[in-house]
Amino acid sequence: MNNSLSQILTEIRPLDEKAMEVARARQYELTKPRGSLGRLEELSIKIAGIKGKMVSGFEHKAIVVMAADHGVVSEGVSLYPQEVTRQMVFNFLGGGAGINVLARLVGVRIITVDMGVIGGFEPHHNLVCKMIDFGTHNMTKGPAMTRQQALDAVQSGIDVVEGEIAKGLDIIGTGDMGLGNTTSSSAICTAITGEVVENVVGRGTGLDDEQLTHKVNVIQRALEVNKPNREDPIDVLAKVGGFEIGGLAGVMLGAAARRIPVVIDGFISGAAALIATGLEPRLRGYLIAGHLSAENGHEPLLAYLGLTPLLNLGMRLGEGTGAVLAMTIVEAAVKTLAEMATFAEAGVSDITSAEAPG
Amino acid sequence: MNNSLSQILTEIRPLDEKAMEVARARQYELTKPRGSLGRLEELSIKIAGIKGKMVSGFEHKAIVVMAADHGVVSEGVSLYPQEVTRQMVFNFLGGGAGINVLARLVGVRIITVDMGVIGGFEPHHNLVCKMIDFGTHNMTKGPAMTRQQALDAVQSGIDVVEGEIAKGLDIIGTGDMGLGNTTSSSAICTAITGEVVENVVGRGTGLDDEQLTHKVNVIQRALEVNKPNREDPIDVLAKVGGFEIGGLAGVMLGAAARRIPVVIDGFISGAAALIATGLEPRLRGYLIAGHLSAENGHEPLLAYLGLTPLLNLGMRLGEGTGAVLAMTIVEAAVKTLAEMATFAEAGVSDITSAEAPG
Repeated sequence: MNNSLSQILTEIRPLDEKAMEVARARQYELTKPRGSLGRLEELSIKIAGIKGKMVSGFEHKAIVVMAADHGVVSEGVSLYPQEVTRQMVFNFLGGGAGINVLARLVGVRIITVDMGVIGGFEPHHNLVCKMIDFGTHNMTKGPAMTRQQALDAVQSGIDVVEGEIAKGLDIIGTGDMGLGNTTSSSAICTAITGEVVENVVGRGTGLDDEQLTHKVNVIQRALEVNKPNREDPIDVLAKVGGFEIGGLAGVMLGAAARRIPVVIDGFISGAAALIATGLEPRLRGYLIAGHLSAENGHEPLLAYLGLTPLLNLGMRLGEGTGAVLAMTIVEAAVKTLAEMATFAEAGVSDITSAEAPG
Repeated sequence: MNNSLSQILTEIRPLDEKAMEVARARQYELTKPRGSLGRLEELSIKIAGIKGKMVSGFEHKAIVVMAADHGVVSEGVSLYPQEVTRQMVFNFLGGGAGINVLARLVGVRIITVDMGVIGGFEPHHNLVCKMIDFGTHNMTKGPAMTRQQALDAVQSGIDVVEGEIAKGLDIIGTGDMGLGNTTSSSAICTAITGEVVENVVGRGTGLDDEQLTHKVNVIQRALEVNKPNREDPIDVLAKVGGFEIGGLAGVMLGAAARRIPVVIDGFISGAAALIATGLEPRLRGYLIAGHLSAENGHEPLLAYLGLTPLLNLGMRLGEGTGAVLAMTIVEAAVKTLAEMATFAEAGVSDITSAEAPG
């Protein structure tokens, strides 16, 4: 019923240049000095290119929060006990987490997905079960998952987003929950970007210096043991990734194939974007970096992707919190383009000099 | 009926340290790693200090957009004709300007104030008339306004905000419209911060290099002719300021005296904040810098005020557009503090180590 990964990859098209040209031309006619809305103008043009037309806003906004556990936690890379992953999923379902508060504020529906949380869950009307396994294996001892599991994780993400499109979806964000997933994401980032581990490792939930050095060693060991092939994103995902990271990569690809803009959150979503753009580089046109995480590796990761984050608020919570906040900015971009009066409509004098700088 | 400036200045109190301590303690109990909401956490604590208690959100949000004309436009410092100030006020009233679109999106009411636009306006139910004069005088030939007019402008701002408080007001933003007002704001910024003119002058609505050099010369002449006294903010306002800048200074002071947080917009609001904090330094605690404007002088101006902007989107439209967008971030800060579950409430394990870094 749903489209397969290989099919989806062929359906991700370049942005619509004609729609972007129309949007750019309209920006010049709106009652403001040219360029004075800065990144809102850029964004409005990009969204027109993604959608293939100018849109008046986003009626259906959603954030997909994918949760999974990581075997590498047994190496002591996180300050919180592993059961926090599962506890936080209950917190999402109960409406008490940061993402719940922000999604309510911005008017975004949350899709919580179990991609492989230890302990699992009883069926719940607000929880989508795409469980691959009860957490990954410890990547310092071998691959985190099988190649087939990696493919299944990505396919699950595609299936989730296609289900949401059927309900109505105009823009989507990505979020994550998974103790140990900054470790996994750092390994992916090192494997794909070629950065040294030290530059892409951060303090996660709040490590001290000694704990940070230990985390660097753990990641180096995982990379040495597994030797992921950077030319093969599925291999990287399988060897040092996580189920939620694979799922989010699938969400991005599935959304882009249907011309839906994707606001990515922080470092973990960024690692998923490395996998997904490795599978299809054209995906990049559909991605909007919601914010710059305080997690160290996020800046080189976004630079590698060629994305400039919209917000920089020192946040590092994950869950999609940065993505959801940034959706307001994206909506502001689209609405100013759609709703502002032109010079002619408002009877406002435009500059006459054709050489006027933007 | 309304409070006088001298009365207002005595009523601006230090932030409430106890309320801030309570807010900080609650931040540590919420289901997230400590510090992981970054600036949202800081902001939530600051708002508690301003309000004297934790609040659940902002029911009544407003942006005051003050418009006035500037005599210095006759020196050729703007690309647009001077009548654009008046035309844009009509655009505000018609709902077609950038600020209208963003205020609708964020749920903010707009108060448009004529502080002294050339040509004036017929009475209009959505326009507040506080007209001081039909524009300021050309500050390169003498003071832009009299000292009494400067005092009247500030008092008008106090009166406007007190009127809004009577209608219900939980947070306020400041915005401006006035051809030539980046020139005036640069002069204020130079006079008060002591920066050299070149560092605080920007391209306004889009000047080229030659026009920019001319603008620098105009500002230098205005400062030489008038010799504003930096120890006397009303003197600076009178000699090189504008009616809308004085009005916005009054809005800030009047709001702070009633413990209402003020989100300031870009460079012109920043110049007003220089005047207002000069009159009462405690005001600074009540100010939130909404965004970093693309206008050159804004960065040193905010550094002088000791404020770090929330957004940096390359915007330079004025009208309060940056302030209104930033209000969503401020509301996000307040709502996460108020609505997130604690570790105990959600049954989520907290870190046990007391030495865990924030």
